[in-house]
Amino acid sequence: MARTIQSLERAAAVLRLLAGGERRLGLSDIASAIGLAKATTHGLLRTLQQEGFVEQDTASGKYQLGAELLRLGNSYLDVHELRARALVWTDDLARSSGESAYLGVLHQQGVLIVHHVFRPDDSRQVLEVGAMQPLHSTALGKVLAAFDPVAHNEVMEAGEFPAITELTVTDPAEFEKGLEETRSRGWASDLGETWEGVASIAAPILDRRRMPVGAVGITGAVERMQAGGTLHPRLVAAVRDCARSVSRDLGAGRF
Amino acid sequence: MARTIQSLERAAAVLRLLAGGERRLGLSDIASAIGLAKATTHGLLRTLQQEGFVEQDTASGKYQLGAELLRLGNSYLDVHELRARALVWTDDLARSSGESAYLGVLHQQGVLIVHHVFRPDDSRQVLEVGAMQPLHSTALGKVLAAFDPVAHNEVMEAGEFPAITELTVTDPAEFEKGLEETRSRGWASDLGETWEGVASIAAPILDRRRMPVGAVGITGAVERMQAGGTLHPRLVAAVRDCARSVSRDLGAGRF
Repeated sequence: MARTIQSLERAAAVLRLLAGGERRLGLSDIASAIGLAKATTHGLLRTLQQEGFVEQDTASGKYQLGAELLRLGNSYLDVHELRARALVWTDDLARSSGESAYLGVLHQQGVLIVHHVFRPDDSRQVLEVGAMQPLHSTALGKVLAAFDPVAHNEVMEAGEFPAITELTVTDPAEFEKGLEETRSRGWASDLGETWEGVASIAAPILDRRRMPVGAVGITGAVERMQAGGTLHPRLVAAVRDCARSVSRDLGAGRF
Repeated sequence: MARTIQSLERAAAVLRLLAGGERRLGLSDIASAIGLAKATTHGLLRTLQQEGFVEQDTASGKYQLGAELLRLGNSYLDVHELRARALVWTDDLARSSGESAYLGVLHQQGVLIVHHVFRPDDSRQVLEVGAMQPLHSTALGKVLAAFDPVAHNEVMEAGEFPAITELTVTDPAEFEKGLEETRSRGWASDLGETWEGVASIAAPILDRRRMPVGAVGITGAVERMQAGGTLHPRLVAAVRDCARSVSRDLGAGRF
């Protein structure tokens, strides 16, 4: 079995560092954050810069992520089979529900948004493709944690259920109970547990082996999404219809 | 001066390979394409996979780009000052022109689209953020080649002006003449030179030192963009207004 390559792991650590928190860092900051000598770090940064993964601000001399990552990230989307199959169905979901639709996959310890259809009105909205959502508080995350054993491990092993809003479920036992409900009814919801006043509904997408490969859902103001504490059944049905359609396109059986 | 790191350069070559052409390749294909032994290549792929830059299809065993690239590409956009400043102005440009608006920067030998506002109608459109456009045939590319000496070098040193449509300018001398016109009038156009039946208009964005940092433009059907062989002056004015507004936001003077 081939060994992993240390300089590559270090380069990945530099990129992760620049992707979080400060995002524009000097050589010394980067060296001390990843625990390497300045000369070693400079060699990494120089190569990353040459390949377009890192850019150096001419005025401050600080480093930030480079344009090549955007180009490669776009190529990742192009090759994404689930996303390709889901494009038409998520468009329909946004149209029929009147809310924004999201497609998410498990990545590291969260949900990576690989497709986002804007709410069909004229409001200004920010594209969230490439953004991460927490597993323990979002409808997409709960669906993945309920149906995908790997996602379940990620969320339980992290052992942390940070309170993002006052309504976030922070007790592991209560969270597990929620997952059981999600499994039995086939969909998950988030009622103000991630964003105050915002609700989500999500359902799992299965492949031809009936393995969960992602989740699809809608997100919108609680005032539109529910009435009297109950999510509108037509919205739940729209999300589940969409998830079933994409799953069938991926080869999952009807039963 | 620090040396570059060979394994990093090789890893970048693997990612570039997976971003173009086939996009799903086996170990042998990758090894022979980048000219390395299989064992060396396997070590690279194993580490890239561990870091999320590459994924392996379980069924075929083939490799493709990984989700971490999308996450990092999104972080690149978040830190992009030009894009942040341009968001509101490009929204206005799409609304006032009725066409789709694009913001592009020089990357490698082309224009990297860092922001894309859909044409404000209900038609289905594909987001092109992260996509590349040629320097020699698009309005955005011509603006960069005319105003940014680095972009000019890239396009002239490449020495190739491939005919993308029948209308693409393929003669270097004629291309240079077009750049002179672009410089003197302050904007560039593409009349069916990249996509048949599609026209573009673009103008440069300047920073506080009045250096070109990108280009902004609109793209649409020639039938809507021009009449009698002339681009509608109100569309040209809208693009130039947008470019001036973003430039001023970046600190460029009014004169």
